[in-house]
Amino acid sequence: MEIRGAGKIAKAAALALKELALNYDKDDINVLKDELRKASETLLSTRPTAISLENAINCVLRDIEASLRIEDLRENIARNADIFIENADKALDTIGEIGARRIKDGDVILTHCNSSAALAVILHAHSDGKKINVYATESRPKKQGYITVRKLADEGISVTLIVDSAVRYIMQEIDIVIVGADTIASNGAVINKIGTSQIALCAHEARVPVMICAETYKFSKETMTGELVKIEERDEHEVVDPAEFPGVKIFNPVFDATPAEYIDVIVTERGVISPYAAYEIIKEMEG
Amino acid sequence: MEIRGAGKIAKAAALALKELALNYDKDDINVLKDELRKASETLLSTRPTAISLENAINCVLRDIEASLRIEDLRENIARNADIFIENADKALDTIGEIGARRIKDGDVILTHCNSSAALAVILHAHSDGKKINVYATESRPKKQGYITVRKLADEGISVTLIVDSAVRYIMQEIDIVIVGADTIASNGAVINKIGTSQIALCAHEARVPVMICAETYKFSKETMTGELVKIEERDEHEVVDPAEFPGVKIFNPVFDATPAEYIDVIVTERGVISPYAAYEIIKEMEG
Amino acid sequence: MEIRGAGKIAKAAALALKELALNYDKDDINVLKDELRKASETLLSTRPTAISLENAINCVLRDIEASLRIEDLRENIARNADIFIENADKALDTIGEIGARRIKDGDVILTHCNSSAALAVILHAHSDGKKINVYATESRPKKQGYITVRKLADEGISVTLIVDSAVRYIMQEIDIVIVGADTIASNGAVINKIGTSQIALCAHEARVPVMICAETYKFSKETMTGELVKIEERDEHEVVDPAEFPGVKIFNPVFDATPAEYIDVIVTERGVISPYAAYEIIKEMEG
Amino acid sequence: MEIRGAGKIAKAAALALKELALNYDKDDINVLKDELRKASETLLSTRPTAISLENAINCVLRDIEASLRIEDLRENIARNADIFIENADKALDTIGEIGARRIKDGDVILTHCNSSAALAVILHAHSDGKKINVYATESRPKKQGYITVRKLADEGISVTLIVDSAVRYIMQEIDIVIVGADTIASNGAVINKIGTSQIALCAHEARVPVMICAETYKFSKETMTGELVKIEERDEHEVVDPAEFPGVKIFNPVFDATPAEYIDVIVTERGVISPYAAYEIIKEMEG
Amino acid sequence: MEIRGAGKIAKAAALALKELALNYDKDDINVLKDELRKASETLLSTRPTAISLENAINCVLRDIEASLRIEDLRENIARNADIFIENADKALDTIGEIGARRIKDGDVILTHCNSSAALAVILHAHSDGKKINVYATESRPKKQGYITVRKLADEGISVTLIVDSAVRYIMQEIDIVIVGADTIASNGAVINKIGTSQIALCAHEARVPVMICAETYKFSKETMTGELVKIEERDEHEVVDPAEFPGVKIFNPVFDATPAEYIDVIVTERGVISPYAAYEIIKEMEG
Amino acid sequence: MEIRGAGKIAKAAALALKELALNYDKDDINVLKDELRKASETLLSTRPTAISLENAINCVLRDIEASLRIEDLRENIARNADIFIENADKALDTIGEIGARRIKDGDVILTHCNSSAALAVILHAHSDGKKINVYATESRPKKQGYITVRKLADEGISVTLIVDSAVRYIMQEIDIVIVGADTIASNGAVINKIGTSQIALCAHEARVPVMICAETYKFSKETMTGELVKIEERDEHEVVDPAEFPGVKIFNPVFDATPAEYIDVIVTERGVISPYAAYEIIKEMEG
Repeated sequence: MEIRGAGKIAKAAALALKELALNYDKDDINVLKDELRKASETLLSTRPTAISLENAINCVLRDIEASLRIEDLRENIARNADIFIENADKALDTIGEIGARRIKDGDVILTHCNSSAALAVILHAHSDGKKINVYATESRPKKQGYITVRKLADEGISVTLIVDSAVRYIMQEIDIVIVGADTIASNGAVINKIGTSQIALCAHEARVPVMICAETYKFSKETMTGELVKIEERDEHEVVDPAEFPGVKIFNPVFDATPAEYIDVIVTERGVISPYAAYEIIKEMEG
Repeated sequence: MEIRGAGKIAKAAALALKELALNYDKDDINVLKDELRKASETLLSTRPTAISLENAINCVLRDIEASLRIEDLRENIARNADIFIENADKALDTIGEIGARRIKDGDVILTHCNSSAALAVILHAHSDGKKINVYATESRPKKQGYITVRKLADEGISVTLIVDSAVRYIMQEIDIVIVGADTIASNGAVINKIGTSQIALCAHEARVPVMICAETYKFSKETMTGELVKIEERDEHEVVDPAEFPGVKIFNPVFDATPAEYIDVIVTERGVISPYAAYEIIKEMEG
Repeated sequence: MEIRGAGKIAKAAALALKELALNYDKDDINVLKDELRKASETLLSTRPTAISLENAINCVLRDIEASLRIEDLRENIARNADIFIENADKALDTIGEIGARRIKDGDVILTHCNSSAALAVILHAHSDGKKINVYATESRPKKQGYITVRKLADEGISVTLIVDSAVRYIMQEIDIVIVGADTIASNGAVINKIGTSQIALCAHEARVPVMICAETYKFSKETMTGELVKIEERDEHEVVDPAEFPGVKIFNPVFDATPAEYIDVIVTERGVISPYAAYEIIKEMEG
Repeated sequence: MEIRGAGKIAKAAALALKELALNYDKDDINVLKDELRKASETLLSTRPTAISLENAINCVLRDIEASLRIEDLRENIARNADIFIENADKALDTIGEIGARRIKDGDVILTHCNSSAALAVILHAHSDGKKINVYATESRPKKQGYITVRKLADEGISVTLIVDSAVRYIMQEIDIVIVGADTIASNGAVINKIGTSQIALCAHEARVPVMICAETYKFSKETMTGELVKIEERDEHEVVDPAEFPGVKIFNPVFDATPAEYIDVIVTERGVISPYAAYEIIKEMEG
Repeated sequence: MEIRGAGKIAKAAALALKELALNYDKDDINVLKDELRKASETLLSTRPTAISLENAINCVLRDIEASLRIEDLRENIARNADIFIENADKALDTIGEIGARRIKDGDVILTHCNSSAALAVILHAHSDGKKINVYATESRPKKQGYITVRKLADEGISVTLIVDSAVRYIMQEIDIVIVGADTIASNGAVINKIGTSQIALCAHEARVPVMICAETYKFSKETMTGELVKIEERDEHEVVDPAEFPGVKIFNPVFDATPAEYIDVIVTERGVISPYAAYEIIKEMEG
Repeated sequence: MEIRGAGKIAKAAALALKELALNYDKDDINVLKDELRKASETLLSTRPTAISLENAINCVLRDIEASLRIEDLRENIARNADIFIENADKALDTIGEIGARRIKDGDVILTHCNSSAALAVILHAHSDGKKINVYATESRPKKQGYITVRKLADEGISVTLIVDSAVRYIMQEIDIVIVGADTIASNGAVINKIGTSQIALCAHEARVPVMICAETYKFSKETMTGELVKIEERDEHEVVDPAEFPGVKIFNPVFDATPAEYIDVIVTERGVISPYAAYEIIKEMEG
């Protein structure tokens, strides 16, 4: 799966399930249910740590048991997928709008990787007419920072690319760090792209606030029951070609965990919260 | 200049001046003196921040004024160059021997970039029969970490390559951080390859000791008189091809400064010191 | 407006609106509504950052639309103003009672500026028979500390005046810091009189707990939606007469923001909470 | 009372009241009510700081007023006691199950004193087949650590006893600190066996996470209203025989308070929370 | 004595002793010696904590015993006083020159009180053509900040006056803190105008470097032998008129101690050092 | 060897060698030399980590080679032993005198274990008429704190015994921590009785200064060449009888290392220094 970002993956999964349902042209409801369940398992196995993917699938499939007729099932799946995607898009807009209010004219921003929610905030601040400057890290190994800098430059925002090692060097220039999240745990820890936690540490050392931008479907109910967010390790080829490094191990963790104490605010579509309010958000989502 | 590492550059400069003197086949001592001085300036301009380069040149040229005959000049230059190189090599050996005593059997080591002095310590510990595991960062943009991991693997040392962003993630596994230095200031700050200071910060956060390995000719007398160590910015092509990133600035600082408070010891050929003893080392070097 | 303290201002505004309504002797309900709205805007413009002022006005005016007859409008305004003031006064009493339980006999207290809620706690502890000693800062530029020390001395409490710069010097003598709040943000940050944040930093450095005393109407719902609490800058004459300092700029910010990590507890009329529970308080206030 | 641990004491008190009710063989309901109330006071006086004891008694006696007949009273007391004990036991099981999910195979654990909830987590992780190593402190003065190490060794868990002073020395070996709680305050501070707070400090210094294991009946509603958790001082004979130390004072505090900032998670039977969610737990318990 | 600053006081004392000697128009050498000694004691008693005053007097009087004739005594006193003053002035110039090298074009500087050495650095940077902006604190109670801002404005430097409480608020704007010193202890602690230590704490919190500017005669040999630098308390009238504050104590400490860990460098006329090199400076001064 | 404290052991060793020499009643100088060398090795093997023991032996045996006649050898050994012991005693006196100057009237002191040098400071302050209160830890496993509290009580000093776990609890009462040292490394780290480092950490957390009292013969030249101070592990019977704890491992490290950053001053007989001046002290001792 070459789609980047936990939010984009969740929406793509919702869409895939919708299409599977709509394209199903036979009449056996149980077969379709089975196929939907299998597809869900396959989707989950591609990114076992993404709580947003699981939340998306649960949302799309929530009426599967209650659907008794094949047309109903198709319709429910399609509608739920549309709702998930629409809500996710609205959440992004709202996060952009709320987060942008915390950006001041002239602010110098540091971002990492390529987060839709973080970009929503930066772009909104820019379209509000605030003059901002952005530093973006390369984000090895996959270099998603390249996408970020191109997007920001296209929008006419002043943007500077740095290597991941230069974060502490430029931190004294930074007014605010803005990044996304893959998963948020019940104690407020934020799991995000590898490198986020050392950026947050450098920011905390220099008293620079860290804003996490995250839709509420990234808050993990599972962490309430003790599940640790497993940090995925990806193929070593993402780093180098192992054949060129005989005898050398390559370790390629994709995420790391930033402790809540290094985070100033999490901007969600429900508002600006402390990371320590994660327990409340999870309870609210449970209804 | 494609030579890596402040020590290697200093020795290469000494050798270059020696060869210039020995290859000079005319009789005009003043012309040779001029050429030596010009060559020194050229060498210095390639790496304006490298105090070790300046120390090497000063050492090689120290008898230039007192040399009255062309043979004496050639001989003095050659002898001083040999002395500098020999002392530099001996310093590396001694640092390796001293530093290795602080490595314990079973230690997991993190290193950054490609430092001769840091490698001397690691290799010495290995040849002492200590079972060690080394993590080495890629060290973007020039990826000198590749040289490090190949060298260590060739020597039969267990070594793992990580991207620069994974430092904090693996810090809890690390027993000691071992890196080199480009320059050491009179207040104990260590200027080294970009990324060193955030590695040291991550180590300090997790109570992991940081060992700096540095020959005493890397201690900067100039910082005593207030000179700031200028952080060189290199060509943006080292990071990416700017043509592929229209409208995007690229910022490529080569070094950063690690404050003394994040450093446990500096291992020099004169012994193991606190970074705060930099003033003493500078005074001892002045005689 | 020469009234000090966010709580006093809020109550004064409620009273002003009540009097405006009661003194209105004509029959045109729309004119009165307009006058009430204009007066509210004028009041708000005097202290744009005071969330308590806004909360007070909202409370007093909440039935303005539903009031169809001029007598009803007058009555509603007057009743709501009375309710606001009564609740605010009760909140102060409750805060005094609750907060005082956390004061131990013999405690040495540091306070800053002139906060009704902080004084309520100190005075309640004193009236409980606890022997306490209070240090109070001068609180430049307006020197509200003078009012504080006079009030405490009048009540027979041992009190010592210090300049604002002496805070860290005397911190080792202090058992607890007790101050008020102007506004509390949704992430637990406390906006209060300039100097509060460096007092809290000094306390945190010395492991001295910081108690913030704040009625719940000081918690800012606006910060949920991303609004930054604008730090008011006041007239430079409060600091010096600019005419005596030609060519010198004078910068006079009235508040600063203390991060939640430096705060032990916030004492509200609903109980003792962590600053990180600000989100819950705001939700409870919304009902 | 020679029973260790806040949870065990609470359950023993419930059982004692149940037995008192069942063994009462006269007919005067008022006498029994009086005896139950007196017994409760006596129980509370043995451990004035234990919120769990108070919570247990309140639970057992909650129907005392509503019970009009002697048989009803006996039955209500017995049933409520059974319910309390059953819920407390279930809570322990759930905590064990949830907490164990956060233990990784190969983890080295540090524990202090003898906490049923902390042991539930450790034993559950062991029975899940995870290979763990435990360090346990002696826990002077009463040396409850002896019970802990014997229990763990009996279960076949690799366990090492250390003196209380060796905590910081071995912290670099530790992956997670797991301890219980006596009381949890509304701001997230955890009151537990003397020494807990310096263990948590040492853990925080080395970035080692601290897990507090606590049933929700240990959260103190009283701290909401400003009550400070009084730290009990016990008989100096627990430390030494004072007769052997003429002229020497002996100070024997039983608990200390660990600030929330040094705690990673609290594992309760309701799930894994940040200590800063204490306010929510207290509100949920109030219903 | 209305002279400000430890350096100015030292020079004034040297001058006073010189004038006493030159104005003595009788012939009795022992009377002059007695008068010189008495004058010295009087001078010392005005500022018992000022090590620079003592160093100045010791320097001026160092030949008093060896002077056998009245003319010699007069001449020795005058010459030694001139030497002290000349060296002190040279030291200021050198500190200005060295320190200014550490100021970068565009730097925003924070200073406190009115230090000749700190001003020497700032003025030198300005005359080097560097564009700088200076924030200066009021420095209650004596408001020496007024002298500082007037001096800097007169020199055409952009300068802004703030109250002492606004330091943390503006710290994020600051590139470097530059202050003087009254006394430097053998462990590197810096005693300076009240408020310095909380400025240094705020700077450390935000990773802003602190530069102390101090002539070496401010390093205290006495602290080597355990003497604590007594913090002088001055007349409460400096703060307020006590008559207007019946029952209120006023505490007016003049200095505080900044621990070495919050100081980046001390700039002396011997060069830029870490505060931890204070022991070396004291030994060098002893010869 | 049942003698406590690095200084006492060093002096006992000097005495033992002296007695061996004086009691030797044969004429063969080579036999005596052999016996002295064997005795030295035996002494060293009892406490392999004690640099002071090694320094004492080196001092006593320094003329062994140069002694050609049996009487000279005996005399030299005896004289050198006397000199070592006399100097060690003088150092203790000087440390007591210097250190006591840093104690203020009314100070509350915390000490750990049983250090002659720390006691010298405390007793000197007491005999200077300063009213002090001392807290002393039990110091498990050997409970040397019992000796400390008895000694202090005998001298009429107010002293309170606590368990080792109560250190952080009482830290807010403490004005200064005073402990001894076993060995001081070249980077300023202090090796001392297990528990010292967590006491220093607790002190640093609460801004309480830590004074290390150490004769200069405790500074380790070996650490200059990279030697790590090996932390001795002693017999598990010191902790408990292993037979009573089947299946339980017992780990009994005797010392730990306190990093220099947690230490305010080291008081030596040469004066009050920063721990970072350790390199200078070692160089001065080498001459």
